[in-house]
Amino acid sequence: MSALTAPWDRAAERSAAARFVDTVLKGAGQVMFQGNPLTGLLFLVGICWGAVAADTASVAVGAVVGLVVATVTALLLNPDPESLRSGLYGFNGILVGAALPTFLAGGAALWVYLVLGAATSTVVFMAVANVFQTWQVPALTFPFNLVNWLLLLAAFQFLRLETSPLAAGQFPQNIGAAAAHADLTAGYLWHTLFRNVSQIFLIDNTVTGVIFVLALLVASRWAALFALTGSAVATATVLALGANSVDVGNGLYGLSAVLTAIALGSVFYDPSWRVLVYTVFGVLVTVMIHGALVSAFAPISLPAGTGPFVFATWLFLLPKKQFAPVQHGTLAGGSAESRASG
Amino acid sequence: MSALTAPWDRAAERSAAARFVDTVLKGAGQVMFQGNPLTGLLFLVGICWGAVAADTASVAVGAVVGLVVATVTALLLNPDPESLRSGLYGFNGILVGAALPTFLAGGAALWVYLVLGAATSTVVFMAVANVFQTWQVPALTFPFNLVNWLLLLAAFQFLRLETSPLAAGQFPQNIGAAAAHADLTAGYLWHTLFRNVSQIFLIDNTVTGVIFVLALLVASRWAALFALTGSAVATATVLALGANSVDVGNGLYGLSAVLTAIALGSVFYDPSWRVLVYTVFGVLVTVMIHGALVSAFAPISLPAGTGPFVFATWLFLLPKKQFAPVQHGTLAGGSAESRASG
Amino acid sequence: MSALTAPWDRAAERSAAARFVDTVLKGAGQVMFQGNPLTGLLFLVGICWGAVAADTASVAVGAVVGLVVATVTALLLNPDPESLRSGLYGFNGILVGAALPTFLAGGAALWVYLVLGAATSTVVFMAVANVFQTWQVPALTFPFNLVNWLLLLAAFQFLRLETSPLAAGQFPQNIGAAAAHADLTAGYLWHTLFRNVSQIFLIDNTVTGVIFVLALLVASRWAALFALTGSAVATATVLALGANSVDVGNGLYGLSAVLTAIALGSVFYDPSWRVLVYTVFGVLVTVMIHGALVSAFAPISLPAGTGPFVFATWLFLLPKKQFAPVQHGTLAGGSAESRASG
Repeated sequence: MSALTAPWDRAAERSAAARFVDTVLKGAGQVMFQGNPLTGLLFLVGICWGAVAADTASVAVGAVVGLVVATVTALLLNPDPESLRSGLYGFNGILVGAALPTFLAGGAALWVYLVLGAATSTVVFMAVANVFQTWQVPALTFPFNLVNWLLLLAAFQFLRLETSPLAAGQFPQNIGAAAAHADLTAGYLWHTLFRNVSQIFLIDNTVTGVIFVLALLVASRWAALFALTGSAVATATVLALGANSVDVGNGLYGLSAVLTAIALGSVFYDPSWRVLVYTVFGVLVTVMIHGALVSAFAPISLPAGTGPFVFATWLFLLPKKQFAPVQHGTLAGGSAESRASG
Repeated sequence: MSALTAPWDRAAERSAAARFVDTVLKGAGQVMFQGNPLTGLLFLVGICWGAVAADTASVAVGAVVGLVVATVTALLLNPDPESLRSGLYGFNGILVGAALPTFLAGGAALWVYLVLGAATSTVVFMAVANVFQTWQVPALTFPFNLVNWLLLLAAFQFLRLETSPLAAGQFPQNIGAAAAHADLTAGYLWHTLFRNVSQIFLIDNTVTGVIFVLALLVASRWAALFALTGSAVATATVLALGANSVDVGNGLYGLSAVLTAIALGSVFYDPSWRVLVYTVFGVLVTVMIHGALVSAFAPISLPAGTGPFVFATWLFLLPKKQFAPVQHGTLAGGSAESRASG
Repeated sequence: MSALTAPWDRAAERSAAARFVDTVLKGAGQVMFQGNPLTGLLFLVGICWGAVAADTASVAVGAVVGLVVATVTALLLNPDPESLRSGLYGFNGILVGAALPTFLAGGAALWVYLVLGAATSTVVFMAVANVFQTWQVPALTFPFNLVNWLLLLAAFQFLRLETSPLAAGQFPQNIGAAAAHADLTAGYLWHTLFRNVSQIFLIDNTVTGVIFVLALLVASRWAALFALTGSAVATATVLALGANSVDVGNGLYGLSAVLTAIALGSVFYDPSWRVLVYTVFGVLVTVMIHGALVSAFAPISLPAGTGPFVFATWLFLLPKKQFAPVQHGTLAGGSAESRASG
């Protein structure tokens, strides 16, 4: 709770309705790890701005519907009360709600699909949280990605849903002459820096990116700083390696890197020089995993989503100090042992 | 033990041979979670009926061979005695034995392959049971699916095995005009209702489906009821969304849903209104995962098998009441920490 | 420590530089589970011989660079001191370093890529070791395979890296008439026996294979014996099933089988007749998983690497004596339960 939100926090304590709104707004904020209702509100403002500008209001409506449905589903499934109040059951639902109208068309069937997907994201979150608690690692936005990938793939089987916004299936190819190239002007770099942030919510809009960074600033200066650091490092890396610079300019190569940088640099580890180096390393691996998913998903037409962030952050949270791995020597109790030796 | 099987149960206590037969029959029954020898016997009757009707006796022979081989393999690998007696080491083997002759041709090589696959299903079951015991979740038919997918894929590399019954590799496509359509008559719906059940053992036969439901009734009225509920809900859903109604009519879209409904509604949770709603939710997600697997597997020619049931049921068994997920905050002990702070 | 390496072992105790070299050499040896510096040295000799003979010195240079980078990365990340000294943080890095120059071209970008990949293999090793310690199963060479697959897939997205040494994407096909066939002479079988060993380090050279077997002999007679047993069983099996005998002759179908045989037969279980049978079973499953990965990876142009060894060995290490799986009955504490019952 910060000074900025103190009056609202008091209102949320008194009224059940305000408390629900507070929970929902924190759910939006948790997409970038901020259980802060003002951050969440600004995220919604940025989404609306970008969706209206692109004439895709359904993305903004879907985001709100997904957020509310996921939160209500949690309420019905015996959630952990504290996690509910900090928004942990909502942040995957908002992403499902923004993604499905981006990649599919289909009228009523799409909205039924979206509600089902948002509710499913809560079940998946609860399932993954149980599994990953074993190693004290968070579920992150894996539930969103799993639901998104499943529902997009399933849509190919259903006539009521149009998959035409998805790329046609193809084998991965060295992009060679086919790669589109933009001029690397200062304007291009400026737009890329912020679109890497706006694309986290599937919005391709520089102003939205600026609003999102302000929303982070409200809650945590370190988060805003690491977001821009991740964005810059990812952009420089993929341009140096020769990625498709039109895709790069639309923020597609940086969105996961921004999330990895916030997560490793400012949320799960305390900021330090050592952590900064580790975070930059994590960002580079995020960029590689993004490229890998784009290739692996080419035959089945899936977008990478925030998957690269999830996988890279898991990999960089799991190593523990002076942790002894299983050695290369005899293991006891295997089924291959003779009966007598038991 | 029920009154119906009491005399047989006594025989099984006295004779080692009868005990082995009892173990094997329970193994067949456990495909739908019933450690009941009469259920298992009726499953075998239904399989034989359907296999003979379709002129594919090798599917029935394969099922019996797979069931026996998987059980014997377990006997040799220091099994848990109680789990052995309740049939837990046999139900994946019977499915491997029914599936391989359905999807491959190849004379002697096929039968060597089938024996190897059934034995492997026991090792995989023991491995997965160890891993998933961590979260008190059962292995389900994942071992069957893994072995089935591995052996079908491997068959592409071996001249002695014919893969021609498998679909040719292709990119997933919105089925559009290509979707075949059946007339949705009462007869169509009746056949679909029961073929969703018969396809669990890879049999496309309405009478077999009726025999299977009777086999469930013998052991548990709830199981039979939930089986038909799952079948009906899945069929209504995929027809509403516009799936290929010829495939739907052959039971391909409902087999996993039937298993999910039995598992969630009558086995792992106690039946109640709340559980019924949760189960219907689980069935919808099963249907989505089925559609997703069909698309994802299109380039590599794999059938979905009972994979959608396994993945959906895992997702719906893992959420626990008031379970606190890992929070979005500092985690201790990471390798990125400085040495001094250790 | 053996008599052969005793003088060197004493030098390594006295000098930090010698200790580092010792650590690095043991890292090479751990690819086949031998924390023995002489084994590691002979592996490097074999790699150099084969790389020079094939006019691909970059593979040998890459191996050494990858080995050193992975080890140094571990030093910076608070490793378990004992595991560091036995070489556990190096053996994935040496494989990354040998693999990337085999499958990619690209000058400076390739070497940046290789250093990043080797460093990442250490993070992945630490992450996987943490996860798999839960079941007392080692990480094996999974980190190498994951990094190799990710970086090869990502390379399709980057103009600075040439992926032309990778096969073009295609759907898996029954190899039929297209399968190339070699004459199965005694010479062919002899070369295959040892190339199955040399290919572990991505070298297609009979002399290198002989050097590798000698390197194993120095550390463990059982390891050398099981390596050749695994190689022979795998070769006989795939030739009987009708695999492409040119690929078989190049050692591609046997490399994972050699590793599985060493691991199951001589490292993680104590050698016995019972363990020998279990190991042969494991080798057969390794061969099947290899065939499966070749098919599954056909559309995305990936090599199987040592993945089949990793997956098969995990499956054959996880089954435990008299381990009780989760039963098919009511599970307590699910989110679907009513609130009152909590």
